[in-house]
Amino acid sequence: MGRWVGVDVGGTKVLAGVVTPAGQVLRTVRGTTPGRLTPVEDVENAVVAAVLAVADGAPTAVGVAAAGFVDVTGSRVMFAPHLPWRGEDVRERLGSRLGVPVVLENDATCAAHAEATYGAGRDASSVVLVTLGTGIGGGLVLGGRVWRGASGMAGEFGHMQVVPDGSPCECGRRGCWEQYCSGNALLRDARSRIGAEPTVLTELCGGEPSRLTGPMVSAAAADGDLVARAAFTRIGEWLGVGLSNLVAAFDPEVVVIGGGVSEAGDRLLDPARDTLARSLVGVGHRAVPPVVRAALGPEAGLIGAALMAADLRGQGRV
Amino acid sequence: MGRWVGVDVGGTKVLAGVVTPAGQVLRTVRGTTPGRLTPVEDVENAVVAAVLAVADGAPTAVGVAAAGFVDVTGSRVMFAPHLPWRGEDVRERLGSRLGVPVVLENDATCAAHAEATYGAGRDASSVVLVTLGTGIGGGLVLGGRVWRGASGMAGEFGHMQVVPDGSPCECGRRGCWEQYCSGNALLRDARSRIGAEPTVLTELCGGEPSRLTGPMVSAAAADGDLVARAAFTRIGEWLGVGLSNLVAAFDPEVVVIGGGVSEAGDRLLDPARDTLARSLVGVGHRAVPPVVRAALGPEAGLIGAALMAADLRGQGRV
Repeated sequence: MGRWVGVDVGGTKVLAGVVTPAGQVLRTVRGTTPGRLTPVEDVENAVVAAVLAVADGAPTAVGVAAAGFVDVTGSRVMFAPHLPWRGEDVRERLGSRLGVPVVLENDATCAAHAEATYGAGRDASSVVLVTLGTGIGGGLVLGGRVWRGASGMAGEFGHMQVVPDGSPCECGRRGCWEQYCSGNALLRDARSRIGAEPTVLTELCGGEPSRLTGPMVSAAAADGDLVARAAFTRIGEWLGVGLSNLVAAFDPEVVVIGGGVSEAGDRLLDPARDTLARSLVGVGHRAVPPVVRAALGPEAGLIGAALMAADLRGQGRV
Repeated sequence: MGRWVGVDVGGTKVLAGVVTPAGQVLRTVRGTTPGRLTPVEDVENAVVAAVLAVADGAPTAVGVAAAGFVDVTGSRVMFAPHLPWRGEDVRERLGSRLGVPVVLENDATCAAHAEATYGAGRDASSVVLVTLGTGIGGGLVLGGRVWRGASGMAGEFGHMQVVPDGSPCECGRRGCWEQYCSGNALLRDARSRIGAEPTVLTELCGGEPSRLTGPMVSAAAADGDLVARAAFTRIGEWLGVGLSNLVAAFDPEVVVIGGGVSEAGDRLLDPARDTLARSLVGVGHRAVPPVVRAALGPEAGLIGAALMAADLRGQGRV
């Protein structure tokens, strides 16, 4: 029996886990990533350390879910906004250090594969996954197969333009979807109301909007604060606008929403569902796909990566 | 040797053709469709007449490319804005009248299949097709396979919202892409300048903007009229905005632009290419797909439908 390890490499953390081919996570180890301005070796040291610690011996194969653009051959991270990789052959480098086969894939694509196989999309053959964290990530399973795109970069939903000359985005353009629908967008919305409307958020941040955090907004919304709830509603409505565009284009069987912001559940998803049902072209003559919360939580990425590593068996490569 | 017939059923015309399995059109017959307010039988009479006329004897199998939503089983037209079909089992009805196997598919999906097989996308395994006519149609070939969507309705790009609270659309919503990028959008743009700026369009329409037609705008642009050229530039820029969104989501190898408006060629496509190269996320770290004009002209739909009918051979159904 092989030992399959998945490791999710994000901008601030490394999360490695041993995963059974049935998708069960046996144990995990968490580490920190040193950020995009440090040497490539430091990030790779953190990945190798987490993998070896969790595997408790040499793993059979390792899947790496990276928060960045991965080329279509699955060997290089072309660009990662929060990591130092810039075209490095990460698969080869980690493979030679670990001495085992390595699979490399974009983190949201890994999460989509996991959710479509064992999570919220397990009964569907086509899944659009949208992850709402600081920004928006996306992954696609179409007709039972992960769709990576011709250059490995499909699913970059966060930078679809939804407002001409809209809010400036970190990507250098304006009006990107993630400026209206993400953890950052939620915070910006909530901060803009502090001082203007009575809200418990004022106390929570000590009257200093820049100190407001996502968990504070979530806690305030759960306690019934109207300003915090309205912020989730507005983010949810923008989620529905973007989903209407994605469903018109892809026509998936189910839409799965993951990432930290999705922990708000129906507070976020109900406004999205309402907007989708109102905005989708052809409503009345077509199925409107269900919009459901992701089932695998923050481990989805590493599970998907480990499943891809386990798939090497079928290819005779381990 | 079989005789494969494809027939494109649009809002005003029926175009039937005999097509070789190599994609060559041997001959065509054109008829008219009586419109959406007439009985279903009248449209089907027109289809049957065109098929029998062009086939010159019983065809082996017939592919029908319909301008409407086709269900995922390929049997029913669920809705067609310019035709009377509302959930009818068109495949069964036409099959029993013609006495041969019939394949039914959305017209833009047929065109995408044809362009990806023998047209402008023949060297690519993933193609996004956008057809610019009165509105926008779309079709997808991903990883060498036509992607129909979970309910058969993928590729409805024209109703992706690009402007919040934007121009009202025939679909009942606002700000749909086709309100900014289509034959109708071109006409609306050009008409709005008549009387405001010196342009040959004023003469061409006899000073009556409502009499202006698409061919008049094309002719004026070809003759160097600056107002007509600017209209094409603006439509092309909006084409680029929408393509940036589609490429971010799908990451195709090539983008193919068809439909009547695409006959303007680089006058339309150059501004689209410039906008795409400026707007696409990750430019500099990824391939920007070429944006090319469709190669098969108005016969693309019937060719794709005939190819799908010919594919029945491989399934042992003819």
